[in-house]
Amino acid sequence: MNYSLIPTAQTIVQHCQENDINTIVISPGSRNAPLTISFAENPFFSCFSIVDERCAAFFALGMAQQLQKPVVVICTSGSALLNYYPAVAEAYYSNTPLIVISADRPIYKVGIGDGQTINQKNVFENQIGYSANLRQDVSHATDKILHYKKEWIKGENVDKIQNEVQAYNDAELNTAFKIAFTYQSPVHINVPFEEPLYETTKDSTIIAQIESISKQETNQSSLQREKDIWNTSKRKIVLVGVNKPHSVDDKVLQSLANDPSVLVLTETTSNLNHPSFFNSIDSIIAPIEMSNEKDSLFENLQPEVLVTFGGLIVSKKIKAFLRTFSPKHHWHIGGVKANDTFFCLEKHIKVPVDTFFQEMYLDSKTIKSDYFSFWHQVKTEYVLKRSAYLAKIPFSDFSVFSQLMLSIPNNYLLQLANSSTIRYTQLFDMNPTLRVYCNRGTSGIDGSTSTAIGASVVSETPTLFITGDLSFFYDSNALWNNSIKNDFRIIIINNKGGGIFRILPGKENTDVFKTYFETRHNLSAEHLCKMYGFEYRTANSSEALEEVLSDFYSTSGCPRLLEINTPTLINDKILIDYFRFIS
Amino acid sequence: MNYSLIPTAQTIVQHCQENDINTIVISPGSRNAPLTISFAENPFFSCFSIVDERCAAFFALGMAQQLQKPVVVICTSGSALLNYYPAVAEAYYSNTPLIVISADRPIYKVGIGDGQTINQKNVFENQIGYSANLRQDVSHATDKILHYKKEWIKGENVDKIQNEVQAYNDAELNTAFKIAFTYQSPVHINVPFEEPLYETTKDSTIIAQIESISKQETNQSSLQREKDIWNTSKRKIVLVGVNKPHSVDDKVLQSLANDPSVLVLTETTSNLNHPSFFNSIDSIIAPIEMSNEKDSLFENLQPEVLVTFGGLIVSKKIKAFLRTFSPKHHWHIGGVKANDTFFCLEKHIKVPVDTFFQEMYLDSKTIKSDYFSFWHQVKTEYVLKRSAYLAKIPFSDFSVFSQLMLSIPNNYLLQLANSSTIRYTQLFDMNPTLRVYCNRGTSGIDGSTSTAIGASVVSETPTLFITGDLSFFYDSNALWNNSIKNDFRIIIINNKGGGIFRILPGKENTDVFKTYFETRHNLSAEHLCKMYGFEYRTANSSEALEEVLSDFYSTSGCPRLLEINTPTLINDKILIDYFRFIS
Repeated sequence: MNYSLIPTAQTIVQHCQENDINTIVISPGSRNAPLTISFAENPFFSCFSIVDERCAAFFALGMAQQLQKPVVVICTSGSALLNYYPAVAEAYYSNTPLIVISADRPIYKVGIGDGQTINQKNVFENQIGYSANLRQDVSHATDKILHYKKEWIKGENVDKIQNEVQAYNDAELNTAFKIAFTYQSPVHINVPFEEPLYETTKDSTIIAQIESISKQETNQSSLQREKDIWNTSKRKIVLVGVNKPHSVDDKVLQSLANDPSVLVLTETTSNLNHPSFFNSIDSIIAPIEMSNEKDSLFENLQPEVLVTFGGLIVSKKIKAFLRTFSPKHHWHIGGVKANDTFFCLEKHIKVPVDTFFQEMYLDSKTIKSDYFSFWHQVKTEYVLKRSAYLAKIPFSDFSVFSQLMLSIPNNYLLQLANSSTIRYTQLFDMNPTLRVYCNRGTSGIDGSTSTAIGASVVSETPTLFITGDLSFFYDSNALWNNSIKNDFRIIIINNKGGGIFRILPGKENTDVFKTYFETRHNLSAEHLCKMYGFEYRTANSSEALEEVLSDFYSTSGCPRLLEINTPTLINDKILIDYFRFIS
Repeated sequence: MNYSLIPTAQTIVQHCQENDINTIVISPGSRNAPLTISFAENPFFSCFSIVDERCAAFFALGMAQQLQKPVVVICTSGSALLNYYPAVAEAYYSNTPLIVISADRPIYKVGIGDGQTINQKNVFENQIGYSANLRQDVSHATDKILHYKKEWIKGENVDKIQNEVQAYNDAELNTAFKIAFTYQSPVHINVPFEEPLYETTKDSTIIAQIESISKQETNQSSLQREKDIWNTSKRKIVLVGVNKPHSVDDKVLQSLANDPSVLVLTETTSNLNHPSFFNSIDSIIAPIEMSNEKDSLFENLQPEVLVTFGGLIVSKKIKAFLRTFSPKHHWHIGGVKANDTFFCLEKHIKVPVDTFFQEMYLDSKTIKSDYFSFWHQVKTEYVLKRSAYLAKIPFSDFSVFSQLMLSIPNNYLLQLANSSTIRYTQLFDMNPTLRVYCNRGTSGIDGSTSTAIGASVVSETPTLFITGDLSFFYDSNALWNNSIKNDFRIIIINNKGGGIFRILPGKENTDVFKTYFETRHNLSAEHLCKMYGFEYRTANSSEALEEVLSDFYSTSGCPRLLEINTPTLINDKILIDYFRFIS
């Protein structure tokens, strides 16, 4: 095996190996050669090469999301690192452990006009779990350092200083890895490397001092007060944000479903399914907004207790409702952070979700309440009306999403892009065997394709990625990737621009609107498919779509992409009319 | 005319207009609607719509580079802003005035789990001229603020607070614009906007308090000491980095050319041309590195005085040489910052370059020296040998660049990508009527195409962009742009990977090398040309290239792209042999 001759490169590799972090995404460069060599030549690690660092980091994010453990991304010095920032921010707000390692110039070459050199230290300060700024080895290339910056060594014993550097770097790495694991947070490790960068050794001589990372302790304080409140409140909402599949015990779900005083509101990204849950929040709230009895209906829906768990919430309507019709108590259960999303957070209860609800339902009696039954009736009605509406509308974004949701084979990994895509899927029932993900940390359109591809690479089941056109073309470099599996599927709903802007209140059909908001275009994904070896299919009607979907998911010798062209000008009206129709 | 109803949006527009900043690049979004509306509906401004913010910012950078004044980029909240960072860093290190304006959520919605929300304040801290964090208007949507955060207003007079907000924002904007103009630096203005975002008014009611920006005073201290040293030193090097065309007086250039004690070393990006100047620095230094008399030749070349001006230096060889064979005196002339690139900077002399050299040559006598004549002889020899070498080598990157340099029509704007492209062009004579640019602030491969397109849009002459394949595919979204002119030309030298890595010392022909350093691929630009409406041409031999070039620059109804496929495996050997051949 070849190791870089540079001690810190060896140290970093040992820390990763000891912590069982074995997935490494590398972007090309020379300054990072000591790391590239050390990781790529070690069979413990699975390495991936991605040129565009923006894609590389989202690709790594997708893998970390599925693996549920840290993934490393490595780049050279300079602006390369800055291209990681969109994914770093997404990782930060979605609690995904990304370990960013950037090679840097030696400190004496920063700020003196050398090429590919920026101020890399703490560069992600605003949204990062930890920034470790490693020190430079002195035993390596010490002559050169002495030559340029004599004061750095000052005639002291080089071995002694190198031992200090080694101890400092070990401590920084221990802290960074601990934070990545404990808080599921991205961390940044910046490493200055002196030339020569390509020298290797057969035997690693470094013994890194690696601390083992213990599992986070949960806070087992008494829940008696909450239990008292829970068991005397007649209107309780359980609202679930972004949530891993299979993370809540079936018995807990059943207790919630059986409780007449509880509404469980889920989102597509909640990965929680039960016939009694409310999985289309907007289909409940939008009709109330349009109703003449708006205030009394909202008061009827207003909970006494709001319990949330999971990550961020997609539905803007539920946020607006709960901010205005605030619950008396809002408790957030589990996780590393509780957001005061509704401006009324009372408590972050740091116990597992199962523990919390088991406690609530232990020896408790069923409360009399018509809260569930009233709203369940509302739901039953809109489900019927939705069917009637679907039967009468023309081919459009709305009808397409309905068709797509029914087409996806069991057990698929479903990745969704942001903006219209995630919002439309929320309106329909989801096949409960699917695992559903969407980048809701920052809700950006910038890296959804790369994330989906990263997730698919480590998924045991096939992956379908559904996206809008702007999001897809934004991240078209995602397809520049040698690891894409043949069972990977992309569906683009191409309405020739940012269709979501047509739904917003301020839109007018002016040139300014079309150019700067909707950003109308005439692009097709066909050429990208030819460029990157995807089989291309297209559909422009319900019938054509039905036909294509009939074998879209079948086994194939290359990945497939389906581009569905929907009519730009009617989509917004059909969506708004849907909410009117079910009112 | 329509103005946003939001006071700060009106204020920002007035500051831009008053400072004669009229070029605005907008990426789509809802949070930035108050700015989009206010700029796009005002005929004073030329607005451009670009979806991918990474491309948008580099596009704006290219325009600012040509216009020599600030250009504004505007985006919505969240990760959108982070995609600007690569271009912001390039602007920072190349002294290009980019004014980044980001829309933000109201402060009470940051950090509570709202969508598309990150910590935007000071997010570019490490490489930005100034970060202005504007305050939120209270007269607009005050009810909502009162509802959520009662303590923010505390019953005080809303008008009084709004006046304070207005005064604060004016002051911040005045500072930001002053820094952008005075230091030619990027600045970041972050603006929180409360909903509703789309309301407009016909009459602007805001009167912004705008300070006029005075031209920077130059420091006219005595140069007597420098003049004494200059006129008694027999070996002087004038080394010019990135430099605007026509920025030095012809008489000054002539004085330097006539001085037998002076070597003027220029780079492709220096935009300085004279038959007596040394425009291929590496062709002088590489042969010395290979020589048996290396030390004595370097001592012979070692200057007593080094005068630098302009921006960053491309040649790694001149840096290594001057760091080891240091001049007694290194003075950097003009500009806003002097880099200690060679670890021996004595003085930053803040006078214009013309003023400095006029002073040096005023009433001075010619010094006896054979410095110029000795090295001029060396140059004459390598120029002859280069011709002989070109006559014997096969079709390759080296031969292609030679052919290309001779093909470019007079007065073109020439934009170069980083890495191999800029390094190869340095080996050949440049048509002196061309204006040459390359992103040497951070020397990244991430935004060269977007920069070139931005520059071309505001250039009166046609533009040629030469790029390598990795750099081109990295920034392929640059072509997603409705403003590309028909006379825009792209030439890609496609050697199927990062050919520059083959020249580096550590390369081996292993799978690790091909995958993680060279990042071998089989992509062609043909599909992107079909997608984005470029006429596509290709050449795989010298003869074919000659043929294509014969009418590549002719008038056309759409932009053209020429992809030259060179043989991956021989390019490095031909380059290294060149330096051996001319030794």
